[in-house]
Amino acid sequence: MSEHTTDEHKMKEADITSTPSPGRHSGRFPYVHKVGKPPKQNLLTELSNSFKETFFSDDPLHPFKDQPRSRKFILGLEALFPIISWSKDYSFAKFQGDLIAGLTIASLCIPQDIAYAKLANLPPQNGLYTSFVPPLIYASMGSSRDIAIGPVAVVSLLIGRMLQDVIDPKNEVAYVRLAFTATFFAGITQMILGIFRLGFLIDFISHAAIVGFMGGSAITISLQQLKFLLGIEKFTRKTDIVSVMRSVFNAAHHGWNWQTIAIGLSYLAFLLISKHIGKRNRKFFWVSAIAPLFSVVTSTLLVYVTHAEDHGVQIVKHIKKGINPPSAGEIYFSGEYVSHGFKIGVVAGMVALTEAIAIGRTFAAVKDYQLDGNKEMVALGTMNLVGSLTSCYVATGSFSRSAVNYMAGCQTAVSNIVMSCVVLLTLQLITPLFKYTPLAILASIIISAVVGLVDVSAAKLIWKIDKFDFIACMGAFFGVVFITVEKGLLIAVSLSFAKILLHVTRPRTAILGKLPRTTVYRNIEQYPDATKVPGILIIRVDSAIYFSNSNYIKERILRWLTEEEEQLKGKHLPRINYLIVEMSPVTDIDTSGIHAFEELYRSLQKREIQLALANPGTVVIEKLHSSKFADMIGENMIFLSVADALLTFSPKTTEEV
Amino acid sequence: MSEHTTDEHKMKEADITSTPSPGRHSGRFPYVHKVGKPPKQNLLTELSNSFKETFFSDDPLHPFKDQPRSRKFILGLEALFPIISWSKDYSFAKFQGDLIAGLTIASLCIPQDIAYAKLANLPPQNGLYTSFVPPLIYASMGSSRDIAIGPVAVVSLLIGRMLQDVIDPKNEVAYVRLAFTATFFAGITQMILGIFRLGFLIDFISHAAIVGFMGGSAITISLQQLKFLLGIEKFTRKTDIVSVMRSVFNAAHHGWNWQTIAIGLSYLAFLLISKHIGKRNRKFFWVSAIAPLFSVVTSTLLVYVTHAEDHGVQIVKHIKKGINPPSAGEIYFSGEYVSHGFKIGVVAGMVALTEAIAIGRTFAAVKDYQLDGNKEMVALGTMNLVGSLTSCYVATGSFSRSAVNYMAGCQTAVSNIVMSCVVLLTLQLITPLFKYTPLAILASIIISAVVGLVDVSAAKLIWKIDKFDFIACMGAFFGVVFITVEKGLLIAVSLSFAKILLHVTRPRTAILGKLPRTTVYRNIEQYPDATKVPGILIIRVDSAIYFSNSNYIKERILRWLTEEEEQLKGKHLPRINYLIVEMSPVTDIDTSGIHAFEELYRSLQKREIQLALANPGTVVIEKLHSSKFADMIGENMIFLSVADALLTFSPKTTEEV
Repeated sequence: MSEHTTDEHKMKEADITSTPSPGRHSGRFPYVHKVGKPPKQNLLTELSNSFKETFFSDDPLHPFKDQPRSRKFILGLEALFPIISWSKDYSFAKFQGDLIAGLTIASLCIPQDIAYAKLANLPPQNGLYTSFVPPLIYASMGSSRDIAIGPVAVVSLLIGRMLQDVIDPKNEVAYVRLAFTATFFAGITQMILGIFRLGFLIDFISHAAIVGFMGGSAITISLQQLKFLLGIEKFTRKTDIVSVMRSVFNAAHHGWNWQTIAIGLSYLAFLLISKHIGKRNRKFFWVSAIAPLFSVVTSTLLVYVTHAEDHGVQIVKHIKKGINPPSAGEIYFSGEYVSHGFKIGVVAGMVALTEAIAIGRTFAAVKDYQLDGNKEMVALGTMNLVGSLTSCYVATGSFSRSAVNYMAGCQTAVSNIVMSCVVLLTLQLITPLFKYTPLAILASIIISAVVGLVDVSAAKLIWKIDKFDFIACMGAFFGVVFITVEKGLLIAVSLSFAKILLHVTRPRTAILGKLPRTTVYRNIEQYPDATKVPGILIIRVDSAIYFSNSNYIKERILRWLTEEEEQLKGKHLPRINYLIVEMSPVTDIDTSGIHAFEELYRSLQKREIQLALANPGTVVIEKLHSSKFADMIGENMIFLSVADALLTFSPKTTEEV
Repeated sequence: MSEHTTDEHKMKEADITSTPSPGRHSGRFPYVHKVGKPPKQNLLTELSNSFKETFFSDDPLHPFKDQPRSRKFILGLEALFPIISWSKDYSFAKFQGDLIAGLTIASLCIPQDIAYAKLANLPPQNGLYTSFVPPLIYASMGSSRDIAIGPVAVVSLLIGRMLQDVIDPKNEVAYVRLAFTATFFAGITQMILGIFRLGFLIDFISHAAIVGFMGGSAITISLQQLKFLLGIEKFTRKTDIVSVMRSVFNAAHHGWNWQTIAIGLSYLAFLLISKHIGKRNRKFFWVSAIAPLFSVVTSTLLVYVTHAEDHGVQIVKHIKKGINPPSAGEIYFSGEYVSHGFKIGVVAGMVALTEAIAIGRTFAAVKDYQLDGNKEMVALGTMNLVGSLTSCYVATGSFSRSAVNYMAGCQTAVSNIVMSCVVLLTLQLITPLFKYTPLAILASIIISAVVGLVDVSAAKLIWKIDKFDFIACMGAFFGVVFITVEKGLLIAVSLSFAKILLHVTRPRTAILGKLPRTTVYRNIEQYPDATKVPGILIIRVDSAIYFSNSNYIKERILRWLTEEEEQLKGKHLPRINYLIVEMSPVTDIDTSGIHAFEELYRSLQKREIQLALANPGTVVIEKLHSSKFADMIGENMIFLSVADALLTFSPKTTEEV
């Protein structure tokens, strides 16, 4: 493109400002585009549209459109059980990947299951049960291809903490029954959220809060393991760092068991090193995947041979053989424990969901497939519901095992089925062998598993990007570490909410100036070469105008004006005649907002300043009209853009380029 | 301006697109303005700025700047006691206005005070006490010139309802002590909100919710009056409409007292008619102002003469003579009632604040003076604190009396002082005369006072402007009427919050098109003549991108893209190569938002579509840089405006005008 054509190009650009050809203008002011007011929708359409966008934003019924009935039925079945559709083109090649991945995560999950059950104060076999039934249900109903289902550390800690507040774990029968009750309600909660498409509720826990919560939980979980790692018999029930450290030091003189410490620490070192190797070189990820099972087998043999259990090394002792017994009859459906079970279930169910959805989304983004959050919730809910009837406690997607699953080359949820089968064999055949497994090894396995949840680099990034997010992150972290895991969660959620509310209460406003040689008006703080237009103040409001901020916005605009006038007075410059409010970012306005604008208009009238609005959006212009505010300030004071308003108020300025 | 000059004007407009003169461009693409990135503020400045904007948005220390110390002290005193500054130019003319207004509201407040005290289950003299001390404190500390201070119906109902849940009103000593305790904490709450500049918290109750809450309260209060109006002796304690109506009909056979009904209804008719007259012709407003006192005087005389009290007409009976006794010793500072008193005080204090601030702002807007919300709160808090030490219960600004005060021509808070003096004289001299006042008259006075709170036209306007606001309004209304006043308040607040959260969770997105013969890009739904640019999809996101919506926004953008691609395929049109996200309304982004954009970028890369951003604001551009996302998509893919991006991607299109 030669210089010349570019010049011509520039000439033609003459027309591409918002002021069209001269033929259409009349009188002093050139004709300008009017602000569009879309045809008024009737109430029903409006409500149904906003309902649809809130609850069915992903348009789940799209494929069902214009299909015959039989086809709809099949589509419905496929939607509920994705296994039907993906199993059609399942191949041997895929199975190879799934088999290897399934075996790998099975070897990882068996020791973890026993350890996590311990963390929830449950008998060890319940951990294994939870890796048998739920993965099967998920494999048929879930749509994530990479998630590995089973008990996880954070939920185990949370449920253990909350259950023991209600029933002493020593009262094992009642305690386990309450655990099933909580699991039942966790499943119901998850299903209901999915069915009623309330999945967006879990979006209210911010990423930053999750990072803090997970990190804090990992620290708390690791601290809890000191009991087994140091062989302490009398240990506090509390989870906060102060109580735990006091417990540890009080036991220092006679409560520590040196055999236990020796075994525990050496295996912990081994596990952490193997984890490091797996991380450094992804080819060796299997080293970290197989290390826990290797540790369990060798340490169990060691104890069995040396009879270390007689020297104070605590072992698993009791572990039941056989697959999941039914537990429907054990769930509390009446009595004082129902409400406790319900409360614990709701909290544990939400946290479990958050974790599963986060994992599912991460891997879906990596492999670029879509994940329907609401459908996932139904799948996870059904799985926990069935789990609660078959002696399982709350299962969800595990961060560490899902990563291993992915790296081992899983292709579909069949890897979960493989894992489930291995767990079945374990339960039927070799469970009794775990009797001699030292608890210190399980503690080491837990610590090495959760250590990855402390994500310092994520916290650093959060600090760099958003300071308030960082406060939420640290609030959740310290809440979990210094108080309890529930309080930490509460802090995380509250701070997340507070952030939204603060943003809505104190939105930003900016003075706009004209970028030289353009008709573009931008924040003069962001663009230092933007210049103010004499006699005209242009203010942009950066938020929907609601009751929570309408008063602030009105007063802030008046304050800008006062400050500006004081400055002008100091410099003996002409006074302000027009105040243009740039409304582009104002996505909505409510009755309080309209009131605020009416008050603003009256205040300005008394100061003999004309108010004008630029570029109100669809919703806003409709409300300006229905509230008659548009008539109040005059329809001709509402402009398509700031440039158009300027063209009317100060055509000279726009010419003086 | 001739056709010719306009033409020239158009020619010059060539330069006022964002593409400057040809001299500055290089290569194929003309040089364009870069997106401004303001100098990075250090953390402390940033935090202190946002702190200042949140808590000191009105810059209250502005007048103190650069003043000598002694002047600062005087300014400080004046800030705390505005009476010092406005009394300087107080004149006799002003006093005339204040005297008349003061006498008018005194005549209105005396009967109301006795009636409202009854509503709060308190002895009648406490109502009068509350119109004596608090107005004096407010007059010296408050900055509203029109508000009339004293007990009000809604707060009386609320406090009565909540107190009787804790202590039976028949146990008068303890009940009154709890009332003082609640008043004390209400004052403390209000002061703390003011001192810590948390005044914005009351902005979280939306205008719509207040309309509903007030209307519902008025209905509930009126229903409660049926007890006295019909002379029913056995009446329910509950306030919901179902219980009350059941009570009324159960008493129909033998519990209604016909003498009471006759007196009550005729006076009610008189009061409502006089109110109507006052409303129709503002010259006769004094008719409605004087009517209550007239009713009390005549009906009291009537009862005294006819001894109607012996025929079942209930009368005030006990009313104590003399001014406020001290009550500091009666406040519960320890024991089981403290926490109850605290809770009731916080709720009543907040509701009282909401009412007072709403009134203050309304009249300040009418007379165009500024009202500092936080300073008002300190004044109201101090007034209730002192009130609780002098046998008053919670006082605030009354809607009906403030309106009368304004119409009677009040000039300053001196009208409150005049009213206070009249109440003092009443307490000292004529209180015993109220002994024979029939309760039915007090009931009529309450009904005629609160009937104005049912604001049907406001509700209609809300319906017209914002449907969700209307739901909040009705929720509060029916909550108060059918459940309790506290639950109604809770519903009002919850719905107000829900609205904000919903807006933040499901923000709007829009496809933009080019307005013919301009470089302006607008929502194609709002502007039907806007046309899409072939091969390029322009999407505007209408909200800050936060954890609560980041995932939705990402998926919504991808859905727009998929829908668009399906359409294009159907019409055999060229595929989409560029996706431009217009970021003007995106006022902030957090870590989750950045993650969502990273995922969006990766998804688009797989589909071979180039992502570009247009006009990110100050905060957003900073975060895009600090998170390295700007480097990821390439700095040159971030444009000043959509028009600039188009100029780069499809210069042909911009030419084809």
